[in-house]
Amino acid sequence: VVTESSGSMFAYTTIGGYGELHYNNYEDQDAKIDFHRFVLFFGHEFSDSVRFFSEFELEHSIAGEGKSGEVELEQAYVEVDINEATSSKVGLFLIPVGIINETHEPPTFYGVERNGVEKNIIPATWWEAGLSFNYKPVGGVSLDGAVTSGLEVGDDFKIRNGRQKVAKATAENLAYTGRVKYTAITGLELAATVQYQTDITQGGNNFDTPIDTADATLLEAHAVYQVNDFTVRALYARWDINGDEAKALGRDEQTGWYVEPSYRISEKVGVFARYAEYDNNAGNSDSTTVESTNVGVNYFLHENVVLKADYEDLGGSKDSKGFNLGFGYQF
Amino acid sequence: VVTESSGSMFAYTTIGGYGELHYNNYEDQDAKIDFHRFVLFFGHEFSDSVRFFSEFELEHSIAGEGKSGEVELEQAYVEVDINEATSSKVGLFLIPVGIINETHEPPTFYGVERNGVEKNIIPATWWEAGLSFNYKPVGGVSLDGAVTSGLEVGDDFKIRNGRQKVAKATAENLAYTGRVKYTAITGLELAATVQYQTDITQGGNNFDTPIDTADATLLEAHAVYQVNDFTVRALYARWDINGDEAKALGRDEQTGWYVEPSYRISEKVGVFARYAEYDNNAGNSDSTTVESTNVGVNYFLHENVVLKADYEDLGGSKDSKGFNLGFGYQF
Amino acid sequence: VVTESSGSMFAYTTIGGYGELHYNNYEDQDAKIDFHRFVLFFGHEFSDSVRFFSEFELEHSIAGEGKSGEVELEQAYVEVDINEATSSKVGLFLIPVGIINETHEPPTFYGVERNGVEKNIIPATWWEAGLSFNYKPVGGVSLDGAVTSGLEVGDDFKIRNGRQKVAKATAENLAYTGRVKYTAITGLELAATVQYQTDITQGGNNFDTPIDTADATLLEAHAVYQVNDFTVRALYARWDINGDEAKALGRDEQTGWYVEPSYRISEKVGVFARYAEYDNNAGNSDSTTVESTNVGVNYFLHENVVLKADYEDLGGSKDSKGFNLGFGYQF
Repeated sequence: VVTESSGSMFAYTTIGGYGELHYNNYEDQDAKIDFHRFVLFFGHEFSDSVRFFSEFELEHSIAGEGKSGEVELEQAYVEVDINEATSSKVGLFLIPVGIINETHEPPTFYGVERNGVEKNIIPATWWEAGLSFNYKPVGGVSLDGAVTSGLEVGDDFKIRNGRQKVAKATAENLAYTGRVKYTAITGLELAATVQYQTDITQGGNNFDTPIDTADATLLEAHAVYQVNDFTVRALYARWDINGDEAKALGRDEQTGWYVEPSYRISEKVGVFARYAEYDNNAGNSDSTTVESTNVGVNYFLHENVVLKADYEDLGGSKDSKGFNLGFGYQF
Repeated sequence: VVTESSGSMFAYTTIGGYGELHYNNYEDQDAKIDFHRFVLFFGHEFSDSVRFFSEFELEHSIAGEGKSGEVELEQAYVEVDINEATSSKVGLFLIPVGIINETHEPPTFYGVERNGVEKNIIPATWWEAGLSFNYKPVGGVSLDGAVTSGLEVGDDFKIRNGRQKVAKATAENLAYTGRVKYTAITGLELAATVQYQTDITQGGNNFDTPIDTADATLLEAHAVYQVNDFTVRALYARWDINGDEAKALGRDEQTGWYVEPSYRISEKVGVFARYAEYDNNAGNSDSTTVESTNVGVNYFLHENVVLKADYEDLGGSKDSKGFNLGFGYQF
Repeated sequence: VVTESSGSMFAYTTIGGYGELHYNNYEDQDAKIDFHRFVLFFGHEFSDSVRFFSEFELEHSIAGEGKSGEVELEQAYVEVDINEATSSKVGLFLIPVGIINETHEPPTFYGVERNGVEKNIIPATWWEAGLSFNYKPVGGVSLDGAVTSGLEVGDDFKIRNGRQKVAKATAENLAYTGRVKYTAITGLELAATVQYQTDITQGGNNFDTPIDTADATLLEAHAVYQVNDFTVRALYARWDINGDEAKALGRDEQTGWYVEPSYRISEKVGVFARYAEYDNNAGNSDSTTVESTNVGVNYFLHENVVLKADYEDLGGSKDSKGFNLGFGYQF
């Protein structure tokens, strides 16, 4: 491979990356500074119709025994164009869901931290291994279908902790995902995703006693609408999980939504506001909803280099407020 | 270094990589899916006669505290051409032994998982740090000699677990390796390697009580013969370890062999069968041999992108069967 | 980002790296061989005045649960040219202090291991996140100022262990750094750095009981003087830490210095000697100073590939001697 790549890399191999540094200052905890994500992209064009893409990430700046960070492979797939309208991916790829799961480079979104709805409900960043197809029947319509490895939740039925990250992942129960995306009107994106998994406990592997089969369905829908310098993003996501164990915890339903208007004042400056609610115990009758109100600003040193600041007021089942500063780039 | 590399990298620096995703389904365990290996190659030509090569790997998709994977440096050496027939490596490099230890990109071999003989006896992938020389006295003959860091086995004398991976490795006892390779006849490769280490316990560091010096010798020989679309690979490997402690465990002798005929039906499809036996307790009188019978297929999406499937029947001291699916690429 | 980088990377993205393999043989411990550092540089020119640079490192060859090494992000910043004389960095960068903290590629220094003064007192390699400015009022004079995250020492007040490495780092107390560098005379570099931190315990987070505020000041000065093939390096560094707790341990003062003459015999060979003293308990009256005397040689296979050997005699509060062999490269 060495001799081959030395001959051809400059024509066909690509490198990119992104990163983000966060400073968090909330009233109820020590201020923290963290190089949250350092990411490298490696791609290769095997031919006009066969290409490789990968995303390699170091989280929290340092990884090893006793360290707080980790190294992750978030994408590594080959994409094949089957015909003009159809392509397929095989390997490890991002689940086609939500707004930030597939596009999360810092200059592309507002707010230092990613929103809590996509993080805790969807749960972004979310990747699995398997096979997917994309089909574009007409201009402005895109259909995705995927069969992949699935989640394996523990006895707390927390969606986010169920991500196995394709690391010796239990694959007794697969996940089936479909998405429709509509972009035929300039400035508008509408999309909806459904995912079904036959048992998100993978047979109850992480449970001490035999449990019900917990088949689960995720529904997600979002809209992005841009008119001139004004943009609004809105998203709704909801998990329904069957089985007595999830129900007993109130985790048979987990939901969230947000709406985020933003305005690009100039080439260099944009401002935003966001209201978000999410509840990982929506199935119970307690007041477990987290409410988050954000306002902030992005300042672009370059179109691909951004400084961010935002203020967040947390209410509902959380009660805190604070501000965040951020620095991010992509290339 | 930055200014220099920005000026010269496009002429002299190379990037490559390979990766493999595995799905394993055996009757006695949960099905698993795992991005087993994600590898990047970085090389640099310092001059016509001095070059650098490295292999950086993330195993099992995620590495950090409490995670199942790890990040490894498997190659990082400088090679110097001394004259037309002689070159030398200094640094961290792959031991010149076996078939897959030095060449293990997924499109180059059959079967989703690497064969158990080279994994458990040789033990591939096996790298050490030191100095090596390659000499080609005549066309088709290649001689290698190396002085390197050695294994440090624990009190189970398991060869594979003795790999120190050049991470703060004990270097009280070095290893001496020689290989002869013959490729003068088109389609045929014959090679034999011998390695001698003065004490593979490194003075008994990992033992509670003083022990015998355990000098050890590895013998390995293999043949690869290709006629038109038919190829056969055959390999034999054997460790002899001195000292009472290894003998008491039956680990004074550890052996294995396999034979693997394969046939390339077309540019896109190849099929293979493999019979393998290995025994890490060949020195005792118990039936500890593992027998493995494999049949399977490689389907090439591109010459460097492969989908694999195989069925394995395990016998002897193991009793299981199952199938594996794989995806791999190199660039 | 993929499509963009695939179009522009060959004009603007750079890759480099360095590495070093060490063999250490001291009379009081087992000989060790270790691929101490494997480093990759990734850079990108966003425009003539905005550029990104990063340093990604694998230490000790393997990182993961139960492994001795780690993966680290040591640099990741964007630098912006504000005018002809002024530039600014934002992100994660090396503190401008000492000789080897910012320039530590193996071919640039003598000795297999880095000197103990800069390692244990400064403590190199030392990076933090924040904002810095560089200003060059006249040719040969360079001024640096930085506001960054700071150290967080534990109850042993060891400077080196206080490095938080920007991994979820406590940022209650920031650090303020200034440097003056003078290079107007050919062959001569003079520089001095001062850093002040309001509390290097970050409010006593790692302490069981409330403690004094421990504001701390680092002073460092060094000279490098080269005349023809002769070079001498000399460096002095000193920490002063306030508060009863540091004083009780004798760690209110921590100091070190070294002088290192070297001579480049030919293009391929250089020799050096170094005398160093450092004391992390300089505030007490015990004999806690470590004294190190080194002599050794660098042999350059290529200007960027070096083989090293040195002999070290340790005295004072340590008593050992031994030799080191090394291999290093940069590109």
